[in-house]
Amino acid sequence: MSFGKIEKFIISNELIKPHMTIILGLSGGPDSVYLLHFLRWLQKKISFNLVAAHLDHEWRKSSKEDALFCETLCKNLNIPLESSTISQLNISFKKSGSKEDIARQCRRFFFEEIRKKYDANAIALAHNQDDQLETFFIRLMRGATVTGLACMRIKQGYYIRPLLSVSKKEILAYLARKKFEYVIDPTNINTAFLRNRIRLELLPLLQKVDQRAETNMLKTINAMQETDDFLKKLALTTLEEICTEKEGKKYLTIKQFLSNDPFLQRRVLLEWLYQNHVSFTISTALIDEIIRFLNNKKSTTHQFDNWQIKKHKGLAHIL
Amino acid sequence: MSFGKIEKFIISNELIKPHMTIILGLSGGPDSVYLLHFLRWLQKKISFNLVAAHLDHEWRKSSKEDALFCETLCKNLNIPLESSTISQLNISFKKSGSKEDIARQCRRFFFEEIRKKYDANAIALAHNQDDQLETFFIRLMRGATVTGLACMRIKQGYYIRPLLSVSKKEILAYLARKKFEYVIDPTNINTAFLRNRIRLELLPLLQKVDQRAETNMLKTINAMQETDDFLKKLALTTLEEICTEKEGKKYLTIKQFLSNDPFLQRRVLLEWLYQNHVSFTISTALIDEIIRFLNNKKSTTHQFDNWQIKKHKGLAHIL
Repeated sequence: MSFGKIEKFIISNELIKPHMTIILGLSGGPDSVYLLHFLRWLQKKISFNLVAAHLDHEWRKSSKEDALFCETLCKNLNIPLESSTISQLNISFKKSGSKEDIARQCRRFFFEEIRKKYDANAIALAHNQDDQLETFFIRLMRGATVTGLACMRIKQGYYIRPLLSVSKKEILAYLARKKFEYVIDPTNINTAFLRNRIRLELLPLLQKVDQRAETNMLKTINAMQETDDFLKKLALTTLEEICTEKEGKKYLTIKQFLSNDPFLQRRVLLEWLYQNHVSFTISTALIDEIIRFLNNKKSTTHQFDNWQIKKHKGLAHIL
Repeated sequence: MSFGKIEKFIISNELIKPHMTIILGLSGGPDSVYLLHFLRWLQKKISFNLVAAHLDHEWRKSSKEDALFCETLCKNLNIPLESSTISQLNISFKKSGSKEDIARQCRRFFFEEIRKKYDANAIALAHNQDDQLETFFIRLMRGATVTGLACMRIKQGYYIRPLLSVSKKEILAYLARKKFEYVIDPTNINTAFLRNRIRLELLPLLQKVDQRAETNMLKTINAMQETDDFLKKLALTTLEEICTEKEGKKYLTIKQFLSNDPFLQRRVLLEWLYQNHVSFTISTALIDEIIRFLNNKKSTTHQFDNWQIKKHKGLAHIL
């Protein structure tokens, strides 16, 4: 039984501790229903508060039934449920990207609201190993760097992913054995979506081509995470060393910045932009443009969409 | 026509310069035959010496015919050819690994002999973009780190790979258009080999799942190379900083070594072992074992297969 394995995973990664309040993202699908049952089981071992949160995307007619399913399930298990529809959310930010991206942004907004309401310690998402591998291939097929191939993290801000230690197969087998019900999203078999083509065609073939493929690819993802974590730490340390802080703003010492390896320069710049909360889409082109500007001895200001970088007395800052 | 593209690739990567002597690894297959024709063409633009080298693996009966094909081809093109069979080679090292690995070790030995004979500047191998992607998946399915996913380099020691800028499709189209002959290795369609299953089943499906897959995966490989190069440089710099050299041996200052991030420790250790020419198979387990030993305040010697690490007065060295 895989519950013991997940428990160990949670403890070794310090995901859930006694007296925490955990928000569970519950769609009604097999993964989140499995996580719900698991967390109920875990509550007998670790005492923590659990609140389920369901957001109705209103994409398809059956979505109302999913919401109803979650209601009944939580009622039966005696777990408080917070639910909403996208149209009920008081969203102020500009939604952008694919339909999938927009849905994720709305879900994140909703979960964050619920987290604040309960002053919760974490939001548990039900991503499993198969989701992780799908993400890996989506990133790979878009030409990712180490950061992209590092995929989803076990712990990232308030989000925790206890099921990254379990395969879809284990989840479905458990639910079938226990005769636990769940809803099925009919869009999951629509091969118009890249993720579905990866799940339905690519991953089965990979496993056929080499039996140990999935296990080993998960090792590679782990190696990518370790590499990315190290590079992030190094970039942050370097940024601290070459910055002067004035009124909460980080001024970059250009000469010191340029003395670093070009590879490190790019990562340092990225962290600097993050810390300045610049609203931008990260791209190699943008980073290269900034480095060219910093290398340029003449120009003192560079205008981007709705922000600019100014150079003054060997220091650069963002306006 | 792709010759111009390869020429640019060669110049921008400084692979071939005037007056060099280049050894071409010629199997008689489409890739190396294409590279031969290309190099003949390039000789009209850059003046360099070209010597072809063919090693008969003697695996199958038709291999003798391949050798004969190479002889005729080189004679017709007026290019000196050096050829040998594996059994004729004066190999002293212990061959190990899969049949493919052993063949590569023998080829490398042979090419190196020919390179010395002509005091050549480089050995040109005909690996193309498709080979690169196959290598990527072989490594991925074995659970590689960044170093593994960085795959084959354009330039590595004496080896150069001018065709990493060309796809197999371009190669075959050119050979067909020019009606240039080549031999076909019948084992290339044997799906008992992982590489062949990747080439024949996996890569076509990936391209079908997402049209831009191959182009973008090559970008990812490039990102892996940049990351790996940076980490290697960083590890070497760190190693220099924490080592004392006595009689050509590098003594590691243990305290300084352990003050580094555990991720960097592993890479530094790897470079230290390389520089000490220790004969070992690299594994995470071995590296972790050494780090545990270096962390251990008590024990002063650790025995490995046929070598050991000694700690003395805060310094570690390899015996």
